[in-house]
Amino acid sequence: MAILYADDPADAAAWAAAIRALAPGLELRFWPDSGPAAEIDFAIVGGKAPGDLRGFANLKAIQSTWAGVNHLLADANLPFDRPLARMVDQGLTVSMTEYVVLHVLDSAREGPRLRVAQCARQWLELAPQSPGGIAVAILGLGTLGADAGTRISGLGFTVRGWSRSRKEIAGIESFSGERGLRDCLAGAQVLVCLLPLTEDTRGILNAATFAPLAHGAVLIHAARGAHLNEADLLAALEAGRLSRAVIDVFATEPLAADHPFWKHPQVTVTPHVAAITRPGTGAADIVENHRRALAGEALINQVDRAKGY
Amino acid sequence: MAILYADDPADAAAWAAAIRALAPGLELRFWPDSGPAAEIDFAIVGGKAPGDLRGFANLKAIQSTWAGVNHLLADANLPFDRPLARMVDQGLTVSMTEYVVLHVLDSAREGPRLRVAQCARQWLELAPQSPGGIAVAILGLGTLGADAGTRISGLGFTVRGWSRSRKEIAGIESFSGERGLRDCLAGAQVLVCLLPLTEDTRGILNAATFAPLAHGAVLIHAARGAHLNEADLLAALEAGRLSRAVIDVFATEPLAADHPFWKHPQVTVTPHVAAITRPGTGAADIVENHRRALAGEALINQVDRAKGY
Repeated sequence: MAILYADDPADAAAWAAAIRALAPGLELRFWPDSGPAAEIDFAIVGGKAPGDLRGFANLKAIQSTWAGVNHLLADANLPFDRPLARMVDQGLTVSMTEYVVLHVLDSAREGPRLRVAQCARQWLELAPQSPGGIAVAILGLGTLGADAGTRISGLGFTVRGWSRSRKEIAGIESFSGERGLRDCLAGAQVLVCLLPLTEDTRGILNAATFAPLAHGAVLIHAARGAHLNEADLLAALEAGRLSRAVIDVFATEPLAADHPFWKHPQVTVTPHVAAITRPGTGAADIVENHRRALAGEALINQVDRAKGY
Repeated sequence: MAILYADDPADAAAWAAAIRALAPGLELRFWPDSGPAAEIDFAIVGGKAPGDLRGFANLKAIQSTWAGVNHLLADANLPFDRPLARMVDQGLTVSMTEYVVLHVLDSAREGPRLRVAQCARQWLELAPQSPGGIAVAILGLGTLGADAGTRISGLGFTVRGWSRSRKEIAGIESFSGERGLRDCLAGAQVLVCLLPLTEDTRGILNAATFAPLAHGAVLIHAARGAHLNEADLLAALEAGRLSRAVIDVFATEPLAADHPFWKHPQVTVTPHVAAITRPGTGAADIVENHRRALAGEALINQVDRAKGY
C-alpha cells in the first residue's frame, strides 16, 4: 500500500523528505505515477486535484495541505465519500499570527502615514496610542484566529472575536450569531478576517459589516478572496468608513495588472503570502492522519462537509 | 513644600491631572512660577532644564520623564549633587516593544520589498521564513530590551541580548563584555539598539559592530542619535553588509531636510516616535519617588552617575 502525493510538483521533494524523516517505512508515490490503483490508501492534495482521483477503490482518506478547503469540497475530481482533512500546521499558524500582528501594529502605529511623510521629508511626530484603547475584531476563532487574537491581546490591544459557536479564550471577548456579529464589530478600529469560506461567510466583508465599525477603521483580510465584496470595500474607503485595507487574498490570483487595488493609496496588497504550510511542521499531521485513516479513526482537522470546513 | 514641574509646558496639564489623581494633596508649581525657592523639594524635568534649577536649597531629588538621561547628566542648569531618576514607565515600555516587534516582523516578512512590488503591480510571492531561523541581537537588556526581547522570542525568533552585565531572561541568550558583543552579533540577521547613551556606548553602531552580522542584516535603532556612526551606516548599506536600517533617533532632531536618510531607499525614518512616556502610567513613579526622596530612600530607576544611566 502507498500514499499518493497529488499536490504541487514543486513542493514534492520537500514533503517527501519531511514525511520520510518521520516515517521511513511509508511508501510514497507521485501523481501521475500512482502504480496499481488498488495500492493507494491515502492521498495528499493542495490547490486542486491534478486529475481524477475517484478511481482509487482503497483510498481511505484525503489530506489537504491547505487550511482552507472550500475549493476541494467543490472539486469534481475528488471522491466525496471519503474523509477529508484540512491542515492547520504550526508553521502556518505562526506565519498567520505574524502577518496579523505585523499589520495590526503597522495600523496602530500609523506606518502608512509615516512612510508618506518620509517621502515628503516631513518630521511627523505621531504619538503612539495606548493599545488598550484600540479594539480589534477578529472574524473566525479557529486555530488561526485564536492564536493571532491571543498574541494581539498579549500586546495590550482590546480583542473581540466572532465565530460559529462562542469560544472561551483568555483575553478575547467571544461572540457568535448574527446579533453577536454586530456587537463584535461595534466601534472596532481594526477588523481581521480569518474565517473559513462557506456559503454562510461568502461575501461577508460587505457594506453591512463595515457599517458598525469605528469611522476610519482598518480591514486586514487574509482568509479567502470570495469573502470580500470588492465594490463595497472601495466605496467604504471612498466614504472614509474604512481608512485602509490590507489584503492578502483575492477573487482572482494573481491579481490582474489593471485591478484598482494595486495603485489604491489606501490598499496594501500582499500576494497571498500571509501564511503557508511548511512540510517540516505539516508532515506530522500527514503521518498521523494516515495512521488514523487505516485504523478507521477520526482525522486531525477532519472536514465537516455540512459546515464546509 | 511643593513639586516643581519644569518639563515641556505642552504636557503640563496632562502630568498635573495624572499626579493629582493619585495624590490630591501634593502641591504642584509650574516653571518659572516656583514661588519661594525654599519650598521646592522635588523637580520634574524632561528634554532639558528650562532654566537654572541649582538655587533650590531644599530640592531632594530630580525626576526625569525620559528614559534616557545622558542630556540631563550634562545639563549645567541642574544641581549635580541630588539624586536623579530616569522614568521607564509601563506605557513607554509597551510603545517601545510595539515598535521593535513591528519592525522585526516587517523585516522578517519583507515588507519593504512587498511595498515596492505593489507599486510595480508585481505579484511577488515571497514565502515567509520560519522565525526560529532568524537571529535577533538586542543591544541593551534593561527594562525596554528585556521586554521587547521576551516578546520577540515568544513569536518564535531566536533572540540574543548584550548588556553591561549578563542577565538571566527566559528566551534570551545573554552576553556581556567586548568578546560577548561579538558573540552576540555573530551572524545575526537583525540588530536592535536599545542601549543607554554613555561614554562606553557612544558611536557603538559602527563598522566594527556591523561586521560580524549576517550579510544583508537589518538595523533597528531606537535609542539615541549619538549611538550611530552615520557614515559607517551609509557605507554598510552601500556594501550590502546591511540591507536596511530603521531609525527613530538622530544626532540632530528634527532631521535636516537635506539629510541623506530621508530619500535613502534602504532607510526607514521614523520621527522619534518609537516610545513616549505617558502621564497616565508615569505619574505613579513620580508620586512614589517624591515619597522616597523625602524619606531619604533610593529612588525607582535612580541614575548611577558613574555608569551614566
